[in-house]
Amino acid sequence: MTTTGLTNDVSLDVVADLAAQLRVDSIRSSTSAGSGHPTSSMSAADLLAVLVTRHLRYDWDEPRSPVNDHLIFSKGHASPLLYSIFKAVGVVSEEELMTGYRRFGQRLEGHPTPILPWVDVATGSLGQGLPDGVGVALAGKYLERLPYRVWVLCGDSELAEGSIWEAFDKASYYKLSNLVAIIDVNRLGQRGATDLGWDTAAYAERAMAFGARTIEIDGHDLSVIDHAFVEAASHVAGDKPTVIIAKTIKGKGFSEVENSPDWHGKPFPPDMAERAIAELGGVRSLVIRGPRPEPAEPGPALEHPSTLAPQDQNPQPSKEWPVYKTGEKVATRKAYGDALVALGARDPKVVALDGEVSNSTFAEEFTRAFPERYFEMFIAEQQMVAAATGLAVRGYKAFASTFAAFLTRAYDFIRMGAISGADLRLVGSHAGVEIGADGPSQMALEDLAMIRAVHGSTVLYPADGTSTAALVQAMADTPGISYMRTTRGAYPGLYAEGEAFPVGGSKLLRSGPGDQVTLIGAGVTLHECLRAADLLVADGIAARVIDCYSVKPIDIGALRAAAEDTGRIVVAEDHHPEGGLGSAVADALLAAGQRDFQLTRLAVSEMPGSGTGAELLAWAGIDAEHIADAARQLTSSR
Amino acid sequence: MTTTGLTNDVSLDVVADLAAQLRVDSIRSSTSAGSGHPTSSMSAADLLAVLVTRHLRYDWDEPRSPVNDHLIFSKGHASPLLYSIFKAVGVVSEEELMTGYRRFGQRLEGHPTPILPWVDVATGSLGQGLPDGVGVALAGKYLERLPYRVWVLCGDSELAEGSIWEAFDKASYYKLSNLVAIIDVNRLGQRGATDLGWDTAAYAERAMAFGARTIEIDGHDLSVIDHAFVEAASHVAGDKPTVIIAKTIKGKGFSEVENSPDWHGKPFPPDMAERAIAELGGVRSLVIRGPRPEPAEPGPALEHPSTLAPQDQNPQPSKEWPVYKTGEKVATRKAYGDALVALGARDPKVVALDGEVSNSTFAEEFTRAFPERYFEMFIAEQQMVAAATGLAVRGYKAFASTFAAFLTRAYDFIRMGAISGADLRLVGSHAGVEIGADGPSQMALEDLAMIRAVHGSTVLYPADGTSTAALVQAMADTPGISYMRTTRGAYPGLYAEGEAFPVGGSKLLRSGPGDQVTLIGAGVTLHECLRAADLLVADGIAARVIDCYSVKPIDIGALRAAAEDTGRIVVAEDHHPEGGLGSAVADALLAAGQRDFQLTRLAVSEMPGSGTGAELLAWAGIDAEHIADAARQLTSSR
Repeated sequence: MTTTGLTNDVSLDVVADLAAQLRVDSIRSSTSAGSGHPTSSMSAADLLAVLVTRHLRYDWDEPRSPVNDHLIFSKGHASPLLYSIFKAVGVVSEEELMTGYRRFGQRLEGHPTPILPWVDVATGSLGQGLPDGVGVALAGKYLERLPYRVWVLCGDSELAEGSIWEAFDKASYYKLSNLVAIIDVNRLGQRGATDLGWDTAAYAERAMAFGARTIEIDGHDLSVIDHAFVEAASHVAGDKPTVIIAKTIKGKGFSEVENSPDWHGKPFPPDMAERAIAELGGVRSLVIRGPRPEPAEPGPALEHPSTLAPQDQNPQPSKEWPVYKTGEKVATRKAYGDALVALGARDPKVVALDGEVSNSTFAEEFTRAFPERYFEMFIAEQQMVAAATGLAVRGYKAFASTFAAFLTRAYDFIRMGAISGADLRLVGSHAGVEIGADGPSQMALEDLAMIRAVHGSTVLYPADGTSTAALVQAMADTPGISYMRTTRGAYPGLYAEGEAFPVGGSKLLRSGPGDQVTLIGAGVTLHECLRAADLLVADGIAARVIDCYSVKPIDIGALRAAAEDTGRIVVAEDHHPEGGLGSAVADALLAAGQRDFQLTRLAVSEMPGSGTGAELLAWAGIDAEHIADAARQLTSSR
Repeated sequence: MTTTGLTNDVSLDVVADLAAQLRVDSIRSSTSAGSGHPTSSMSAADLLAVLVTRHLRYDWDEPRSPVNDHLIFSKGHASPLLYSIFKAVGVVSEEELMTGYRRFGQRLEGHPTPILPWVDVATGSLGQGLPDGVGVALAGKYLERLPYRVWVLCGDSELAEGSIWEAFDKASYYKLSNLVAIIDVNRLGQRGATDLGWDTAAYAERAMAFGARTIEIDGHDLSVIDHAFVEAASHVAGDKPTVIIAKTIKGKGFSEVENSPDWHGKPFPPDMAERAIAELGGVRSLVIRGPRPEPAEPGPALEHPSTLAPQDQNPQPSKEWPVYKTGEKVATRKAYGDALVALGARDPKVVALDGEVSNSTFAEEFTRAFPERYFEMFIAEQQMVAAATGLAVRGYKAFASTFAAFLTRAYDFIRMGAISGADLRLVGSHAGVEIGADGPSQMALEDLAMIRAVHGSTVLYPADGTSTAALVQAMADTPGISYMRTTRGAYPGLYAEGEAFPVGGSKLLRSGPGDQVTLIGAGVTLHECLRAADLLVADGIAARVIDCYSVKPIDIGALRAAAEDTGRIVVAEDHHPEGGLGSAVADALLAAGQRDFQLTRLAVSEMPGSGTGAELLAWAGIDAEHIADAARQLTSSR
């Protein structure tokens, strides 16, 4: 047993000893837990032993230091290796490693999450750590302008995920020379050989074609690994990301399982673990740290492709807080752009991303006002959300926008963002059948359900410019996943300047003591509800109208009062019937113990085609006429 | 104006005339509709004019002919071009083109859907047509073994989607020499230049690195285009997909808009359209068809990589319909595998796909029994669902499985599958906190909400082996998107052999005339409900227990009866509170007009960590003890 003091110049002999310790601890922790991935940890142990002792510039006592390098395990199932590193640098105890891994209530979870202060993002859904790393590297190179590097350990299996190639594409487009991907090519996935096996040349060819510098190495030769990291570091001054393609052996170090397809994701039984530890030279308790980062000041501003892109000829947008007149028509997507610019002027941490539709979502206004804080993600929604996650790691308030329908492309990234505890601000435009002629492929009809089901999410759906702008501000202050749904068409302003729109609130737009029915809408259907209330006047029916701009959390007080006062509720939404606004209203009323009410839910229950927005709102049965009909039926049946 | 009769040997002069007609008709149709993408159609008009007249072997009178080639517009926004082709081959009238495009109730929708008999799949969410084409090509090469080719027109913008690279990866892995991707590199996306602009060499390098043959051409030189298609066709005997990278000019043919970034997705105003048509030589009404396919018999069976993969040493699974004893523990995921094999033995149209976790989902049993009908998709869930969609185009009943959590990766593909009207059978294993130690990244807690919100979907969640097997059979007979959620752990069999499990049904597992409360569960929580009912006996509380194995459609009759008979309902689900089983129950009861009931919903309302399944079910408050507590509270409060 050796104990080495803290040093910044660790010899490769000591590194070899450390690599053995990391393997042994990966085995011990997973065997103790009865689950986990020792063999996937063992293949990468040499790579990580060299990295953390000699190249990763990290102050383990100050994980929040802005100059620290970043280490992301995109292959999150190699958590035994990561946690063994945490033990080796002295931030996790032997006891925690042996009794906490994968146990209830403990922080050493099956896959890493930022509950641990040294973990940036949750991983475990493969193909996400590298795209997240792109976001961190964007922050480092263009916003913080600090010399930290972002090291990402990837598995070879996850290179089958398209999101990895979105990441390489954006990493080269943005010249992220501060990003180093280390591919642990151990040839074996969960149920057998990978697509490309040990064909490291094929991986290199692909990565090169996507604009990366590549270095192919033997992932078990410490000296070769060390040279590769030196070379990667020397590329920082360049304009390409580095990809180190390391040929490795799964289970390396324990001859019984080396290169075997039968030992994925299985801890060794105690007797095997004992033999493995013996073969690896026994238990060690080295405590070794690598170099610490130098203090650094932000470097000069660098232009990047988005800033360099020829800007359009439109005038600079106003950086004043936008003001909309009541009655004047404005699209909420336009108000989003206006407010984002004003927010950007107030808060330098606000940044924006878009999926190549910024002239539709109106993110382009931000692009024009703050080109240095805008990152075009092209048509790569997964990478867009991942970049926002990475930017959030560095404290930026990233707003990411595209058509609401296409946020479905990034659902797994949104879900993982929630596990990361990331503050993500997502904006989806062109929601529902209201968009008209483009047809169902462009109509978000599942987005409210999708985001509502994410833990800790906030779902906002404003109907006019004033409320949109206020809620953009609210999103900047809202933790977790927040989502705003905007509308394609322009509708009359409803609220005067200065009106407050708290998250979880609602607005009463029509109400009186004799209300017989309540009409609830959000976004486009709110305008239909207002028109329906007008129609109902002719029938002598007094209708209350609620703007349910906060779909989650929902204003339970207003809903209760509506149920108690009117007993009849009609909810209309431009969304499929499941999981959207109607479900939110029903769920809240039932949860509040309300029972004596009648509820009619109007939603898009068939597959739409093309048409005008008005035709399709009528066809779906969610326009003013149908809302009024539903209200008439409710009031006549009682 | 020229009219040419039907011919199979169209000269390039006539092709040039046709190309002009396609441009003119793309302009006329979009201008008449007031929306659409004329310039994105014009860039590809030469490519398509050559293709449909001289290379696409298609019997326009018999779109269902099994020997037809397939033409997929992955860039679905070029629908004016596609519909102009349909006019040019005589299957859509001038009148329909001019009055039907993008209009309400018409079939020429903004983006193509299979409402049109010549369209295989809905496109319009970019990056999906090529992955869908991979599925069609898999069917053609390995299952039908017919000589048809699959031609896919891609935009250059959509090459930023990772799913395109998943498609190239699988196309080369499966040696899909019958697949030809035509990339229309017009350099311009929606809001400006693409990532790679006109760097066709960069695209070629990437496609080659991913295993394709590439041909770089001038996309406006008819002779060069023609040669490229001849070359692509000559590759059919080979083992690589072909990618034709065509440099084109957006808006080609109308000098006012050629190569302008300002004319994406905009129809020309009538005066501009007039000038454009004049520049293009006026309106034409050519009717020209290209070659028809020869009759063909299925060729010899070809081995493919999945069949060639070394099979494990496990014994061949039984092809008999599985029988499980009541009380005997079996995991529903295991029953899925067993039933899929039995189903495969009965129905040669059944095929299976998996995302490299077949030893977890138990799809591996099918792999072993029918290797020729199994396609390993590795860790590429988007491509997996797209391949299933393409296989469904050819009439195969594709079952696609992975961890339920990772189906979120493919949500946009599932959504588009519904728009395609595809019959997709999706199976997600390892749902909920029940999985235990792996932690939240592997726990599906949003999947029920996600799939319920898809139009026309069916959501099944069986609790034992017998019901799982029956529901696998039901999925084979269910149109649209059907989804089965399976559970990691093994639980006691509940039902005897031969019991029927209709979609939309439920099972009463405990009931009596004096039931005071109803406990509703599905999957793992059903077992907790049964245990809770036992606990409640000690309190003298008679609890009804319903197995809600069909979450959508749900058994409204059983729910009404429960509400009426017991007045008190507890629903427990291993899912977040929004949009899952509890929402389905609440939605159905309210829709049925039930009002006089109390409902307690138990779900996973916080972010889980690792632990044992039992610990986490208790932590989430969805185990028997919590269910019993909720029932006690309901019965004591009334």
